[in-house]
Amino acid sequence: MTIEYATRYRTTSHIPAEPGRPYFIRKGEGDRAHLFGDLVTVYAGGEQTENTFNFFTCEGPKGDIIPAHVHPDTYEVFYVTAGAVRLFVEDTEGEQQERLLGEGDFGFVPKNCPHAYRMERHHSRVVGVAAGPGGTFERFFENLGAPTERLGLPTEPVVPPAERFERVGHQYDVRFLPEHRWHTE
Amino acid sequence: MTIEYATRYRTTSHIPAEPGRPYFIRKGEGDRAHLFGDLVTVYAGGEQTENTFNFFTCEGPKGDIIPAHVHPDTYEVFYVTAGAVRLFVEDTEGEQQERLLGEGDFGFVPKNCPHAYRMERHHSRVVGVAAGPGGTFERFFENLGAPTERLGLPTEPVVPPAERFERVGHQYDVRFLPEHRWHTE
Repeated sequence: MTIEYATRYRTTSHIPAEPGRPYFIRKGEGDRAHLFGDLVTVYAGGEQTENTFNFFTCEGPKGDIIPAHVHPDTYEVFYVTAGAVRLFVEDTEGEQQERLLGEGDFGFVPKNCPHAYRMERHHSRVVGVAAGPGGTFERFFENLGAPTERLGLPTEPVVPPAERFERVGHQYDVRFLPEHRWHTE
Repeated sequence: MTIEYATRYRTTSHIPAEPGRPYFIRKGEGDRAHLFGDLVTVYAGGEQTENTFNFFTCEGPKGDIIPAHVHPDTYEVFYVTAGAVRLFVEDTEGEQQERLLGEGDFGFVPKNCPHAYRMERHHSRVVGVAAGPGGTFERFFENLGAPTERLGLPTEPVVPPAERFERVGHQYDVRFLPEHRWHTE
């Protein structure tokens, strides 16, 4: 049985438009977006949880490190369920760390800590939860990139125009740090 | 590199005692507890996120359905990363559903919705996030069951005395529903 809903984000979604209803989503059938070479799939958003948390996955091929950024008001979880992902994070005193996370490994990035990651294997998948007292930001990815009805990774990278980074980032508590350098590499 | 901390929950933990610090935890090395035949592993708690969310896993053998219960103030995610788990949920109008979730499948249980689950395969693993405006309840499992330093599933089931269910449940927003019946089975 598959129930689909029209929501403010999608004409067909497996996430109910009104909160408070139980629901199930099969693997890969959440609200999907493409950003660079990656597929982001939202399974629950702030609307479902009175803005306490969200739940999404990010899947991608082996690729480049994503742009360093920081969330002034959002805590973020990285939990790898397939492949391998290298997480880079800097604490609020400027100390940098990186760690290769494999299946079942976990990384935690507090608010105000610059971070980035790089998919180190094809078919990598990371579970993300990103939330804070100010709410959740799961719609960042489809606003910087592009929503899609397709299943699977983008066939061509979705590269947003430069001016969109700051505008969309500001809306979703994402501040890009173009001058940032990782010294751990 | 492995850093261990003394926290209010464990003499050695990979979760930093003070919030605001980035950290990594290898698979299986979060704060562990046994409850019935299952192993619950906490990777992040309310202290890490200003009480907005937590992150834990529950692993178990094929087993019986757990007792039906409800969270008056907590939303809960079930995301299966191994094996198969049957999720039972009743909405606030009394309609019941059940669904077999396999690897990558997702279930969402809003507050005030009675629910239960049953591990349908050995070596099943579910990722959980459980939080709401009232906070998070990741320490429920070690208070109803027992904290452990061991890795892996309990060798003997940890069965709490009957009187502990209501007391510990009340403390962590878990109300057991001993009279509840699932009509979907």
